[in-house]
Amino acid sequence: MRTKKHQINQEKIKIIPLGGLEHIGMNITCFEYGDTIVVVDCGLSFPDVDMLGVDLVIPDITYLEENLDKVRGFVITHGHEDHIGALAYALRKVNVPVYATKLTAGIIENKLREHQMVEITDLQVVRHGQTITLGDFKVEFIKTNHSIADATALALHTPAGVIVHTGDFKIDYTPVYGEMIDLTRFAELGKKGVLALMCDSTNAEKPGFTQSERTVGRKINAIFDEHKKGRIIIATFASNVDRVQQIITAACEHGRKVIVEGRSMVNIINVATELGYIRIPDNTLIGIDEMRSYPDDRLVLITTGSQGETMAALSRMAAGSHRKVKIQPGDTIVFSSTPIPGNEKAVTNVINELYRQGAEVIFQDTHVSGHACQEEIKLIYALTKPKYAIPVHGEFKHLIAGANIARTMGIANDHIIVLSSGDVLELGETGASVIDKVQHGEIMVDGLGVGDVGNIVLRDRQLLSQNGLVIVVLTLEKASGQLVAGPDIVSRGFVYVRESEVLMEDAKRVITEAVEHCLSRRITDWGKLKNEIREELGRYLWKQTKRNPMILPIIMEV
Amino acid sequence: MRTKKHQINQEKIKIIPLGGLEHIGMNITCFEYGDTIVVVDCGLSFPDVDMLGVDLVIPDITYLEENLDKVRGFVITHGHEDHIGALAYALRKVNVPVYATKLTAGIIENKLREHQMVEITDLQVVRHGQTITLGDFKVEFIKTNHSIADATALALHTPAGVIVHTGDFKIDYTPVYGEMIDLTRFAELGKKGVLALMCDSTNAEKPGFTQSERTVGRKINAIFDEHKKGRIIIATFASNVDRVQQIITAACEHGRKVIVEGRSMVNIINVATELGYIRIPDNTLIGIDEMRSYPDDRLVLITTGSQGETMAALSRMAAGSHRKVKIQPGDTIVFSSTPIPGNEKAVTNVINELYRQGAEVIFQDTHVSGHACQEEIKLIYALTKPKYAIPVHGEFKHLIAGANIARTMGIANDHIIVLSSGDVLELGETGASVIDKVQHGEIMVDGLGVGDVGNIVLRDRQLLSQNGLVIVVLTLEKASGQLVAGPDIVSRGFVYVRESEVLMEDAKRVITEAVEHCLSRRITDWGKLKNEIREELGRYLWKQTKRNPMILPIIMEV
Repeated sequence: MRTKKHQINQEKIKIIPLGGLEHIGMNITCFEYGDTIVVVDCGLSFPDVDMLGVDLVIPDITYLEENLDKVRGFVITHGHEDHIGALAYALRKVNVPVYATKLTAGIIENKLREHQMVEITDLQVVRHGQTITLGDFKVEFIKTNHSIADATALALHTPAGVIVHTGDFKIDYTPVYGEMIDLTRFAELGKKGVLALMCDSTNAEKPGFTQSERTVGRKINAIFDEHKKGRIIIATFASNVDRVQQIITAACEHGRKVIVEGRSMVNIINVATELGYIRIPDNTLIGIDEMRSYPDDRLVLITTGSQGETMAALSRMAAGSHRKVKIQPGDTIVFSSTPIPGNEKAVTNVINELYRQGAEVIFQDTHVSGHACQEEIKLIYALTKPKYAIPVHGEFKHLIAGANIARTMGIANDHIIVLSSGDVLELGETGASVIDKVQHGEIMVDGLGVGDVGNIVLRDRQLLSQNGLVIVVLTLEKASGQLVAGPDIVSRGFVYVRESEVLMEDAKRVITEAVEHCLSRRITDWGKLKNEIREELGRYLWKQTKRNPMILPIIMEV
Repeated sequence: MRTKKHQINQEKIKIIPLGGLEHIGMNITCFEYGDTIVVVDCGLSFPDVDMLGVDLVIPDITYLEENLDKVRGFVITHGHEDHIGALAYALRKVNVPVYATKLTAGIIENKLREHQMVEITDLQVVRHGQTITLGDFKVEFIKTNHSIADATALALHTPAGVIVHTGDFKIDYTPVYGEMIDLTRFAELGKKGVLALMCDSTNAEKPGFTQSERTVGRKINAIFDEHKKGRIIIATFASNVDRVQQIITAACEHGRKVIVEGRSMVNIINVATELGYIRIPDNTLIGIDEMRSYPDDRLVLITTGSQGETMAALSRMAAGSHRKVKIQPGDTIVFSSTPIPGNEKAVTNVINELYRQGAEVIFQDTHVSGHACQEEIKLIYALTKPKYAIPVHGEFKHLIAGANIARTMGIANDHIIVLSSGDVLELGETGASVIDKVQHGEIMVDGLGVGDVGNIVLRDRQLLSQNGLVIVVLTLEKASGQLVAGPDIVSRGFVYVRESEVLMEDAKRVITEAVEHCLSRRITDWGKLKNEIREELGRYLWKQTKRNPMILPIIMEV
């Protein structure tokens, strides 16, 4: 793309990702110019394995709070948790309008209802092709395809130029519902001039093209054809409404009734049906209690649990703890999904259990990704012809792979920008550079607590989880410093106490000696006494067991 | 295979797996006839994610202890941890001779040395093709290929017939070291008549043929050709000595010196070199401290850490905490491995960190499996023509896949036996049935403790890891039952105490009320008092935080 000298636009825009660039999850990016901040997406991420006991993780939005008067709204690309999951938390602090397409808005509304925030939120439904004005920006919604219906890319028309943000996308020439991705619009924007392309990098390591969602439908149909006897139970992602539609269609064609099981599945199907994204013929759905009225070969269950989540419906069926469904020989279980990294073992465990109950399990070739592979990403570059490439959505290795694709598409190294969360990228026709870093981070949510679990609490949970703890209690007389009760030892998660009486007795002796030694030296600083107990007992227990339990001395004064 | 009526053998043998059939790991199988028990393999398994703090898991060998006088020896198929890792523990209780091929014996000896058990163990080296007599059995060692050199299959010649146990195997027509698998001997045995085939099922779900180890060598050579600048760092499994050999050969051909890093890697390479399984040309190996004397493009590091293990050398390099090696732009890191299920995320984290340090990372197409795929398994069935198929080595889904292969090879359903650990299979020409169940199980090793961590300890660690704990201490006067000190609250892993002062103060008030209420009712059963504290405090904390910390009331009497 040639830039004509006399037309050079001197304006600059700031792009500030507050999450989403360190791993997959917690997508949130600010676009700032003058008095305008527009925020794209507001997702959560699921806790890492070392975030023990944490329920979910949300982004630190201090930057938005500090610039509250500039924030014009949240623009949401689609209804997945990693793009909407932190909205209910963010809106409590930054209550601005939320813009989304119909299904996305429906899913968001469901979520807001759980948080009792529907009334206080200004949630606006936007159509593909529509452009809204937010401060100095015009934000255009462009139809894409993804593993959830109604996904959108965005063209941000800013004073500094047009920025295209793909959202999560794939190119599906034969989508199950609605139109294919609006490639024409990408081409038009490219022709007029795109300053930067922010492109989904999730599958940037993968060569070729992601298959159409419709190929899964064909496979599911084939499974129905081959398994005419017995029940069919299909686990998939609740939010993949096109997948659910294809299962329902196959069920109807094969004369089977459909049961929907699992809370999130029921919720999404309700929203999608209400809004017209799924069409369920009359007399297709039955309640789980009606199952017994039909023979097995007339039934299909669509269920949650495709990721091996302990509490999900399929996992409970596999474990024999589901109250309504017992797996039996003759059942065919289909995993219409692929394990999200980190879930592989949990999924395998569920598969093994299902086999053990006598079921047949199908877990290959029954899923396609919702993200673009290399050739699709290249196509978007070819159409939009951006001056700058800013790969987004992925772990660092995915962003690097995305940058490599940009390079093969002829974008110069210094026009390819791999950002980290918190970076303030200043971008314009005349240059791009990271000029600042703003506060950002992961805030852990545990129960009702938002941010009250931090590194100290996690480190303690980690220690406790590995070796348990030993509590030492003793009561001292304040005046004389005499030991009047204890030392008593209580342990949890350390050894099986009933079989370790000798160890515990000896430990008590070690503590008593340490305490008496301290008291005889007239030590009255209980901090010192506690340290002494910790060290002597720790040394003794390590020698005996090669374990390092947390040791908690507690001194009571009377 | 036709059986001639007048020749029918009425003898029966018992096959008793004590592990290895629930997941991959902890392989140990007893073969029993009259006064003879021969044990094949004695492996460990690595702890599941829910076995918090556990170092490793070994099989319960009570059955062997109870039949000590019958046990003639352990016969080991190869030197992987899941086949030898529990030997040092088992030999303390069942000190019988151990039979293995040369490299396997060398690795076992290394392990016994760590446990100071070399002197008290009768470790015997056997050659491929050799047959040893153990009680009523003759045990024949048959050359196979695997991801560790010197692997062996076994033909157990028993009074009831010949049982072929493949061990872990693949068919490698072009092995890096030594001969290919002795297919001729499998064919001969098949011609004479094989009662049962116990076949490795690890890859039974995978169609086709596993590639030769030599293909990895070619790929490694290509990487050396393409990366003439900078260091090359290759992470692989320590025990894959053929892989290490190929890396060393490539290094020599490309004029690079080799550094070996990581304790287990150094150990295995030492054993393998001593025994002649690796040939390292003079002046190839250098110490890690000599690295600075060579330019980067003359260096190759072979390292542990291909599974993302936190403490392994590569992980420390990635984290910037390795004392001798700092990753730098220009480095090429090769993962010559595939993540073992459950390790995917840890491996990805290391890859991301390496990219962040500026290295190039290659983690695809640089590994082949050591286990036979479907076509190889079929070949072994075709050659051995067994009467019975007993798929072994794998999770339940792998055993089912192994059973399916047996079925396609024409073995009738009632001659295909999928066993569980502890099953006593009675097997002979005239029939096969599981007649009994013996004691078996997983014994957890944590530090020096073998078996002292059980379900109660694990459950406590689990609870503590999720929500931490709250300790309530109070001192009562024995005679009057008056509260003389406390209640004090100590918490760990629950909330960040400094920011939760109000919560903790209120909690103290709740406890004080509960205690005073109890004391006013003259309750002197401290068990009841503790329960009351647990309930009231638990209810209060759940209401406030939606968390369930472990609550530990401790009462001191003076």
